[in-house]
Amino acid sequence: MTITRFSVAPLHESTIHLAAVASGRAPADLVITGARTLSTYSERIAPEREIWVANGRIAAVMPAGAHKSGPAPKRVYDAKGGTIAPGLVDPHIHVESSMVTACAYAEAALLNGTTTIFCDSHEIGNVMDVAGVEAMLEDARMAPLSIFLTVPSTVPATSPELETAGGDLTPAKIGALFDKWPEALALGEKMDFVPVTMGDPRSHAIIAEALKRNRPVSGHIYGRELVPAYAAAGVTDTHEAIDRAIADDLIDAGIWVFLRGGNPATPWNSIVEAIKPITELGASHKRFCLCTDDRDADDLLNFGLDWVVREAIRCGMKPEQAWAMGSLHGATRFGLGDEIGGLGGGRRADLVLLDDEMKPVSTWYGGELMVDDRKVAPVLEETLNQRYRYPETAYNTVHLPKTRKLVPDLPSGPVVANAIGIEMPGIVLPHRKVAIAPANDWASILERDNLSFVTVIERHGKSDGGMAHGLLHDFGIKDGAVGSSVGHDSHNIIVAGSNEADMALALDTIEAAKGGIVVVQQGKVIAFVGLPVAGLLSDKRVHEVAAENQALKTAWSAVGCTIPYMGFNLIPLSVIPEIRITDKGLVKVPEMVIAPLYD
Amino acid sequence: MTITRFSVAPLHESTIHLAAVASGRAPADLVITGARTLSTYSERIAPEREIWVANGRIAAVMPAGAHKSGPAPKRVYDAKGGTIAPGLVDPHIHVESSMVTACAYAEAALLNGTTTIFCDSHEIGNVMDVAGVEAMLEDARMAPLSIFLTVPSTVPATSPELETAGGDLTPAKIGALFDKWPEALALGEKMDFVPVTMGDPRSHAIIAEALKRNRPVSGHIYGRELVPAYAAAGVTDTHEAIDRAIADDLIDAGIWVFLRGGNPATPWNSIVEAIKPITELGASHKRFCLCTDDRDADDLLNFGLDWVVREAIRCGMKPEQAWAMGSLHGATRFGLGDEIGGLGGGRRADLVLLDDEMKPVSTWYGGELMVDDRKVAPVLEETLNQRYRYPETAYNTVHLPKTRKLVPDLPSGPVVANAIGIEMPGIVLPHRKVAIAPANDWASILERDNLSFVTVIERHGKSDGGMAHGLLHDFGIKDGAVGSSVGHDSHNIIVAGSNEADMALALDTIEAAKGGIVVVQQGKVIAFVGLPVAGLLSDKRVHEVAAENQALKTAWSAVGCTIPYMGFNLIPLSVIPEIRITDKGLVKVPEMVIAPLYD
Repeated sequence: MTITRFSVAPLHESTIHLAAVASGRAPADLVITGARTLSTYSERIAPEREIWVANGRIAAVMPAGAHKSGPAPKRVYDAKGGTIAPGLVDPHIHVESSMVTACAYAEAALLNGTTTIFCDSHEIGNVMDVAGVEAMLEDARMAPLSIFLTVPSTVPATSPELETAGGDLTPAKIGALFDKWPEALALGEKMDFVPVTMGDPRSHAIIAEALKRNRPVSGHIYGRELVPAYAAAGVTDTHEAIDRAIADDLIDAGIWVFLRGGNPATPWNSIVEAIKPITELGASHKRFCLCTDDRDADDLLNFGLDWVVREAIRCGMKPEQAWAMGSLHGATRFGLGDEIGGLGGGRRADLVLLDDEMKPVSTWYGGELMVDDRKVAPVLEETLNQRYRYPETAYNTVHLPKTRKLVPDLPSGPVVANAIGIEMPGIVLPHRKVAIAPANDWASILERDNLSFVTVIERHGKSDGGMAHGLLHDFGIKDGAVGSSVGHDSHNIIVAGSNEADMALALDTIEAAKGGIVVVQQGKVIAFVGLPVAGLLSDKRVHEVAAENQALKTAWSAVGCTIPYMGFNLIPLSVIPEIRITDKGLVKVPEMVIAPLYD
Repeated sequence: MTITRFSVAPLHESTIHLAAVASGRAPADLVITGARTLSTYSERIAPEREIWVANGRIAAVMPAGAHKSGPAPKRVYDAKGGTIAPGLVDPHIHVESSMVTACAYAEAALLNGTTTIFCDSHEIGNVMDVAGVEAMLEDARMAPLSIFLTVPSTVPATSPELETAGGDLTPAKIGALFDKWPEALALGEKMDFVPVTMGDPRSHAIIAEALKRNRPVSGHIYGRELVPAYAAAGVTDTHEAIDRAIADDLIDAGIWVFLRGGNPATPWNSIVEAIKPITELGASHKRFCLCTDDRDADDLLNFGLDWVVREAIRCGMKPEQAWAMGSLHGATRFGLGDEIGGLGGGRRADLVLLDDEMKPVSTWYGGELMVDDRKVAPVLEETLNQRYRYPETAYNTVHLPKTRKLVPDLPSGPVVANAIGIEMPGIVLPHRKVAIAPANDWASILERDNLSFVTVIERHGKSDGGMAHGLLHDFGIKDGAVGSSVGHDSHNIIVAGSNEADMALALDTIEAAKGGIVVVQQGKVIAFVGLPVAGLLSDKRVHEVAAENQALKTAWSAVGCTIPYMGFNLIPLSVIPEIRITDKGLVKVPEMVIAPLYD
């Protein structure tokens, strides 16, 4: 038996049976007894309860033992005093960041007590356009997880003048996605927040496709001064609030605030500051949700949405409030509060058994036990063995030029280079003017000036060998190279290194595997994560990818890289200040113009 | 200029302009400055603010005076330190209970700070079937108020064996209403809660019409023991919670609780008890709303939703919480939280200026000043002068038999009558066995045994003179009669009195006017409210009807009636215990069988 979200029939087909079970006239399929129950509705925990499940849905929550005076249920599960809560609902994630398919993602989600995600498949859209988004939707439909789409709204992130993308999601294509896929419940994060506030016609035409279908619009914004115009443009959530002040502005502007928890070692753990309107400024928490956004494969297992709930508790929320923010609130924001997010009658039996530290022990998805005592249950194992296989086109997205010159010409005289400064946390990259005195070889220059080569090579087959060279300052790599087919947002190939030979090996490795992230040292590949699907995803299970990813991180540090690879992958993201590099060249942000390598 | 809800364009047509206004690049149409603002999102009041309005929507909420450094707005309104809050949202009402049309209802709503209502046009559906519901929708579309439909779900209330109704809203008709009218946002209160919990096929087929269109289902339930099965049937709100215990059960069963405030002199002021899960049991208030449900014409003016908000405050809620429960929460429940219910960017500029006692002073609807300093503003006056005119068929719904025998035969020997006991508050009517000794005339019997005649006459033209006789015990009427074409739920004519002549005059008066409520004393009509539209509604303005209604209440008491006419109108409601009368005879509830007048 395999399980998908379609394993549970729509509620209207089950109301008569559920009413019969709840009335004691028909037996439940499953009773989970001896539990405390966490109500995300009233935000209280009730002792000594049991849950009656039928047709994959909650028929009733009753006093513990009540089932003994009615028809015998098919199965009884003793929760032994643990707390039953509704499955978590993640209102904003990108599956691609985890480098696994949706089916594989589901395993980690269920282990973490997450049963519903709202996925913005923005990355695969950048590579494969509508075909990529639709392949991931097919993947999602086979997954043992409720996966809804927030339609990628900003593909490409900028313009063909500034970078070459594989996708171009026009308003018409976005409208067609809404009409074809009922799980397309919202517009995904409208990242071009400056053009939105300035009234850019294409940006507003895309927003209109959602609004005219009564679909909400998700956002992504920095800058308090832009909040009013962004809200006025129809955007009603964001997960990018990074401090107390902007979070407070956003909530009163009518924008739901998704508090993003992330690995505290990364700059994405914004919950700690953005929760303060509640904990310090007296704001109601009713329009705050919790989300994860991006997780690489191993962080996905260690820092799930359950971890974010515990972070919210650590920041001062009551456990019942925090769990509601991680489940019901996201469901309510997207109009699914009658279907998921709480232990109400008729809801999907997406349930989590929690220990006293609010850590998930067991997870039921549509009434099926998928994770049992922190381990994958047989039905989940069987389901995971039949994962979606992406179409062959998805395995063939890396098209590179035959002749490759991966480093710039050696300067014949003194020059001033427009170098990309590398500094932690690795999001904003400072524009550094580096005066280079002539030398006999690049090696001397790189060593002397703390520089590394960086090259972005167009891989969508749209230009004939299009590539651009740049220099990284303080990237730190020695005697080697790193490369990635993940290079936000257009996902051209980015390779950086101390010498052309190692860079060429990195590129060859990626090309041979049709995608991946690689570390080369002294002529040898010392770590590699293959990402053959769209150059973004592995087709393995999540634990395998997590292990590969951990090895990659170790090698990454070993060659001296000063920022982690998730920061490296953002070097081509030409919408974050101050200077980036795409296949078209160095891009100065926010001027949005191409700069030469040498002034 | 007249105003309807269509006077404001859909948001997607205005986002570019709103963003320009919010950015200070284009002038606002209106700035309301010098205000405090009530955020229903964060549940706080901010001092020294101003609201920028454009295209009938909120462009931005800014610090007071901010507009002075940008393009000059077309109009500026000085709130003089008052509080600006979003217009109230009433999630459950019946326009017909106010005996006025939707257009006329709007006047009272706006005076009370209400700008959106969810209307269950159940009564006109009982009289005129789909045609009645659709006529009221046309009426609603011409009203200066946002009126959404919760599709009447339980018409008729029982079966043709027990009463003759004008309407029969089958699952197919209900599905067609959903498909035809985009303002049909939910299924109306599913009143037959016992059949629902028992799995009645028609009841569940009707629920399915809503659920399969992702429309929520509103409810109506009494009895804690039925809550689990009712919730399992897919119902997700109710306004009938009458005490703390059932309200607490309902909220944890996933059912939104609409706290109903009513004239404290009536039994419908259930908020005082049903709010206690919040104030005494620690439940979050986030899924509690406030509603009015039924209001007669004069109570509508005196006990609006603003009054219910103040009742909630009196019961212990903070003003910001109470206003949110009266606005944003209802909007959220019905999926309109991005459009109304708060002062967020892009929302409709449905605004209320409040004094320090939370009493509405001025109301803007879609940015237009409709109520100014507690008085009807010119644009509202002009709009109200062009109210919807119902079709001629709606003015012709009282079809009575030519020959009428309004009282039963005089008993020729001792009998035991199945009398309908009348006692306050007038909802449950006890079944009283009254032993009647023979007498020479009815007058002696009525006087001796505290009895009154009651007769229900079928008025839908479906039976040839169908009527039934009964006896009221302790109704108290002396030397007169009362009659009404409002007789829940089938709205046949109900007449009661101490003698047949006065009863005949009452009936003739109703027939001549094609509907109304009348009081006759000693051969003279002493009060009358004409209800020519479907026998339910006046076509006058609300203040006129309220004045007529006040005079009616005075006369009603003057002839000795022991329950108010709103209780009287419920005597034929054959779903409330213990005994009622319809055109088919005396109905014993809950056995649902016809009883003879004499055993």
